[in-house]
Amino acid sequence: MMEPGDEKALVLLSGGMDSVTLLHYARARMGYAMLCALSFDYGQKHARELEMARWQAEAAGVAWHRTVDLSFLKCMLNGGSALTDETIPVPPLSAVPPADRVQPPTYVPNRNMVLLSVAAACAEAGRMGPLLYGAHRQDAYGYWDCTREFVGRLNGVLSLNRRRPVRVQAPFIDMRKADIVKIGLDLKVDYARTWSCYRGQAEACGECPTCVERLAAFREAGVTDPLPYPRH
Amino acid sequence: MMEPGDEKALVLLSGGMDSVTLLHYARARMGYAMLCALSFDYGQKHARELEMARWQAEAAGVAWHRTVDLSFLKCMLNGGSALTDETIPVPPLSAVPPADRVQPPTYVPNRNMVLLSVAAACAEAGRMGPLLYGAHRQDAYGYWDCTREFVGRLNGVLSLNRRRPVRVQAPFIDMRKADIVKIGLDLKVDYARTWSCYRGQAEACGECPTCVERLAAFREAGVTDPLPYPRH
Repeated sequence: MMEPGDEKALVLLSGGMDSVTLLHYARARMGYAMLCALSFDYGQKHARELEMARWQAEAAGVAWHRTVDLSFLKCMLNGGSALTDETIPVPPLSAVPPADRVQPPTYVPNRNMVLLSVAAACAEAGRMGPLLYGAHRQDAYGYWDCTREFVGRLNGVLSLNRRRPVRVQAPFIDMRKADIVKIGLDLKVDYARTWSCYRGQAEACGECPTCVERLAAFREAGVTDPLPYPRH
Repeated sequence: MMEPGDEKALVLLSGGMDSVTLLHYARARMGYAMLCALSFDYGQKHARELEMARWQAEAAGVAWHRTVDLSFLKCMLNGGSALTDETIPVPPLSAVPPADRVQPPTYVPNRNMVLLSVAAACAEAGRMGPLLYGAHRQDAYGYWDCTREFVGRLNGVLSLNRRRPVRVQAPFIDMRKADIVKIGLDLKVDYARTWSCYRGQAEACGECPTCVERLAAFREAGVTDPLPYPRH
């Protein structure tokens, strides 16, 4: 049953393939009368994803889309992540020792709680329905803030709000990346307008962890990733 | 028992009397070899508290103090709080109907989770010990994000971190404001260099909820608040 405000959902939109698919899935399959989207500049090397977020938000006909400037995090996390620190290279997945994969160099300290907290503030003030979060099962290996437990406990905190508790919903939390691609293909998502590669160069590298997983997901879904991968 | 990193604590320092007392309490009574402090500009009308935060951080000899610019929140929360919106007056406590006191106009949507999340990111990346939070019992009536339950559940989220879970500690969580004043007087805290009034004028109003509670706390502690209150 829908509650007041539930007709407006707020999507956390990175511009990567998971959150972009979620945006279109929310529009086409979840029945929201109005969608809003929030993206974040936290000093990521792959800020190109933010262009994709803008393009996709417009394509999905959102009521509004904002990119929040959290670029101070890059400086504050000083050396804390290969995603924000120019002096730390983004290693290929094969170069990350198994023991380090529980929290790999591409993990950004507490990033997802920061982004979800800001988005929850926005949703609460704007009287919006759920906060839609594109976390999926395949990221759980290395990112505690992409797990079902994380979403559940975060909702446990937010539920203490006495007037307008915001709920985080993660419809893909038990899916694999290939399942997400299949949903997106069905919805005619333009994956050429998504960006995943962590290395932030002009073209996707095909080697960093997220490229490897993305390529595998497309392969598993039986299609070719429309992004060019020059070295492959 | 101290764990590695526990010798460095990060204090959430608003510049109000509670967090300022906590800063000096952490330095004098909690045995941290190093203290760092974080303040936040979220577009609050009473940004004057940030000057006090800077002064007190220096007085306490912190290793570093940063004021993080989150002023985009003011715009994002658009009309969501009397603390940030110029068109919403800060009412005297007596003018807030009892039914509204569970989440009064001076509540800022999800603010404390945003601030604590950013601080936790900073503490995690900087390999710091606990995050010290000045919440106390007397704020629990109206602010779900100042309660013992909130701190407990937030720690439940953070504990999922697989390498460096940050802990939030709120040493004053079961105290009343007068207890905090007594601790501060004992530590010779200069309360003339703290700021509480929500109205953000040149002098404290003595009428807004936080002024009323502050004045009562000093009265209860048997001393006079050193701030001038022109109308009283």
